[in-house]
Amino acid sequence: MKGFFKVQTPEQLYTKMGRFKALASEKIRIEESLHRVLSEDIISTMNLPEFPRSTVDGFALKAKDTYGTSEKNPSILKVIGEIPMGQVSNIEVKDGEAVKVATGGMVPKGTDAVEMVEYTEWIDSHTLHVFKPISPLENVIQIGEDVKSGEVVLHRGHMIRPQDTGLMAGIGCTEVHVFLRPRVAIISSGDEIVPIEAVPTPGEIRDINRYTIVSMVNEAGGIPLFYGIAKDRFDDLKEKIDTGLKETDMVVITGGSSVGTLDLTAEVLQTFPGTEILGHGVSIRPGKPTLLADINGKPFLGLPGHPVSAMVIFHFFGKPLLKILSGISREWVWHQMKIRAKASRNIPSVPGREDYVRVRLEEKDGTFWAHPIFGKSGAISNLVYANGLIRIGINEEGLEEGEEAEVILL
Amino acid sequence: MKGFFKVQTPEQLYTKMGRFKALASEKIRIEESLHRVLSEDIISTMNLPEFPRSTVDGFALKAKDTYGTSEKNPSILKVIGEIPMGQVSNIEVKDGEAVKVATGGMVPKGTDAVEMVEYTEWIDSHTLHVFKPISPLENVIQIGEDVKSGEVVLHRGHMIRPQDTGLMAGIGCTEVHVFLRPRVAIISSGDEIVPIEAVPTPGEIRDINRYTIVSMVNEAGGIPLFYGIAKDRFDDLKEKIDTGLKETDMVVITGGSSVGTLDLTAEVLQTFPGTEILGHGVSIRPGKPTLLADINGKPFLGLPGHPVSAMVIFHFFGKPLLKILSGISREWVWHQMKIRAKASRNIPSVPGREDYVRVRLEEKDGTFWAHPIFGKSGAISNLVYANGLIRIGINEEGLEEGEEAEVILL
Repeated sequence: MKGFFKVQTPEQLYTKMGRFKALASEKIRIEESLHRVLSEDIISTMNLPEFPRSTVDGFALKAKDTYGTSEKNPSILKVIGEIPMGQVSNIEVKDGEAVKVATGGMVPKGTDAVEMVEYTEWIDSHTLHVFKPISPLENVIQIGEDVKSGEVVLHRGHMIRPQDTGLMAGIGCTEVHVFLRPRVAIISSGDEIVPIEAVPTPGEIRDINRYTIVSMVNEAGGIPLFYGIAKDRFDDLKEKIDTGLKETDMVVITGGSSVGTLDLTAEVLQTFPGTEILGHGVSIRPGKPTLLADINGKPFLGLPGHPVSAMVIFHFFGKPLLKILSGISREWVWHQMKIRAKASRNIPSVPGREDYVRVRLEEKDGTFWAHPIFGKSGAISNLVYANGLIRIGINEEGLEEGEEAEVILL
Repeated sequence: MKGFFKVQTPEQLYTKMGRFKALASEKIRIEESLHRVLSEDIISTMNLPEFPRSTVDGFALKAKDTYGTSEKNPSILKVIGEIPMGQVSNIEVKDGEAVKVATGGMVPKGTDAVEMVEYTEWIDSHTLHVFKPISPLENVIQIGEDVKSGEVVLHRGHMIRPQDTGLMAGIGCTEVHVFLRPRVAIISSGDEIVPIEAVPTPGEIRDINRYTIVSMVNEAGGIPLFYGIAKDRFDDLKEKIDTGLKETDMVVITGGSSVGTLDLTAEVLQTFPGTEILGHGVSIRPGKPTLLADINGKPFLGLPGHPVSAMVIFHFFGKPLLKILSGISREWVWHQMKIRAKASRNIPSVPGREDYVRVRLEEKDGTFWAHPIFGKSGAISNLVYANGLIRIGINEEGLEEGEEAEVILL
C-alpha cells in the first residue's frame, strides 16, 4: 500500500469521525467548571428569584395609585416603612400607601410596581409626591421570572461559560458532572528532528511541532502529554505509539512529513488489534498527508511534518476529535470561529483541494480585508504573521480581488 | 457628594484608564507561555532554516537541466546518491546529475531546485527520467527564508499564540520574559447576598457575581482571588478593600447595586491615601452605576450588583484594565471580538446611553441575524441564552428590523 491511498474530502473524514464517543465524567465544584462540558442536564430545584424583587431604588406601591399623575399633578402617598435589604418584610401595603425599597429588595405584599426614586419627592417625613404613572409589574422581577423550579437551565453537552457558572451559583448548584478532559499523547517524529535545547547540526532542525500542537491541545481543553521524538523506524514508532495508546485517550503524531513516513506509521498501526484506518490523505492544502485511524475506539491522528500544515490539519481534525471526546453536543463539534472577509488582491488556487491561504486581516469601515501571505508551508514565520486562513472551495480556481470568502480565525 | 456624580462616556473612562501600567515580568519556559504577554522583543540568533531544505519528496538538481523537458521528451539525469535525513551532505552535484532527497532534507551543493517524485521515473538504478521543467529555487526553502538571524520575530506586548511557541521553539528560544499575570481581588457586597452553599431565606439571594467575575478574570488571563461578601457597612467594605489592595494588583467589587452602596464605596476609597476617583457612573445600559478609581497606581473597579450589568461592565472596563496590567500592547487593549449582524426585529433604545441588548445570533446563508432577548437586567438566564450583545449608539433611538450593527460575542 506504500504511497497509494485515496485522498478524501474533509466532509468524508468528518462523517467517519462521528463514531468516536465522549469520555467518562467526573463531579467537580462549579468554581473549577469554566470551559468544561456538562455530562448532565442542570435542572433548577427552585424559583429565581424566590421573592418579588425590585430592580430599581424607589418606592413599592400599587400602580393604580399613579394613574393620571404628572409633574403638575402628582399623586400623594403615605410612606409606611422601608424594606431592609436581605430580610423578609411582612408589611402589607394598602391603597394610597408606599414603602421604600432598594434595588434587589423584596417587593412587599399589596404592591405591584416600584416607582423610581427619580420620579418622587418627599413632602414631609411620611408623605411622598409621585410624578410619573407606572404600569403593574414595572421595575419588579417576579417569582420564577428568571428561572422556574423544574426548568432545565443548561443541557448535557454544553460548554460552561462565565454566565453559566453564575446561573448555577444562583440556583445553589455547587457541584456538577462534567466529561473528563481528554489526555492527548503527542509524539514528534523524523530523523532530522532534535529537542529545542539541542544545537542542531546542519541537516537537523528543532522540534517546532511539539510546541504548537501542545498549545493547540491546551486551547481545545485537552491535557497534552509529550512522548518524545521518534526516529523514522518501525520499532521506535511502535513503542511510542503503544505507550501513548495505553496511557491516554488520543494519540497525535507529527512529522509524517514525507509519504514514506506516513506509510510506515500506517504499517505500525496495523499491528495493533482493532485498528481501522479511516483516512490516509485529505484534500486540503496545506496538509494533504494526514492519517486518521480508530484504534479500539481511540482516535489516532497523523499530522504532516511541516509546522504550518500540522497546525492547519490539527485545526480541522484534531480540534473536532477533542470536542467529541470532551462530550460537546454534536451540533457544536464542527463549529468554527469564522468571519467573512474580502480578498485584498487576487489569490490563485488549484481546483481539487480545499485551499486555506494564510491571511492577515485588517478592518476598514466595518469590512474585513484579507491580505494573503504567500510562502512555503514550511515557514512558521508566515503563520506568526497571519491571523486567519481564507477558504477557497474545492472547485474554485481562486479568489478575485474584492471577492468575499470565509476566514477561519487563528 | 451622595448621589451626585457626572455620568461619563466609555471613551472618557478609557482615556483615563491609560494611566495604569503593566506589572513586572518573570522568566518562564516556552511550554508555559501560551496566552502570556511578552515583556521583551524576541530576536532570532540564527537563520531558519540553517541550510537549504527541500519542501517535497523528489530529486535535487540544477533547474536548467529540466528546461524544455516534457512527457514525450524527458530529461535524462544520473542519480549520484541520496541525502540522509538529519545529516549533512557533502555531495556536490554537477550538470546532468541529481540526488534523491526527502521533504525536509538538505538540498546539496550545486543544485538549485527539487523535482517532485511524481514527475520522474527510474530508468535503471542510476538513471532518471524527468518530465516537467522547473524554475530555480522551486521546492526549496532557502537559508534564512523563514527567519533571518538578527530579526525581531515577536514584539514586546504580544500575546503568545500556539504558532508563536512554535516559532520560538524553532529558533531555540527555550525561555522568555513575560509580564506577571494580574492578581485580582474580587469582593461581593450587599446585605442580601449569601454564599451559594447557604439556603437563602426570603429576601436573600445567592452570590452569583462571585462566580461570573471569577470566570471572566480567568478568561482574561488574570488570577482571581475571592475576598468574601462585604455587608453594606463602611467598616466591612473598608477592611476587605484594604486587604485586597495590599495583596493583589487590582480590586473589583460587585454589588454596588444601589446608588447608596456605590456612594458608600466611594467614601471608603477616599480614606486610602493616593486615591483618585476617575469615574462614577458611565453612559452604558445596562450598567450605569460603575465606579473607577486609581488607588496609588492600582485600578479599582466597582460593578453594579445586577449580574447581567456586572458582566457587561466587567467586559467593557475590567477586561481592558487586565490587559493593561498584563502588558498587552496598547493598540490591542481596546480590541474586542465582534462581528456585524442584522437585527431580526425592531429593537428600541433611549438616546443618551450606549445600549447593549442581549441577542442570540443565528447564521443564515453567511449573514448573522441577532434576535434580541428582552428581559430585566437582573435575570441571569437571559445572559445564558444570549451569545452576543448588539450595540446601539449613544445618539440612536434603536435599530430597525434588518439594520446592521456591531455585536460583541459573549
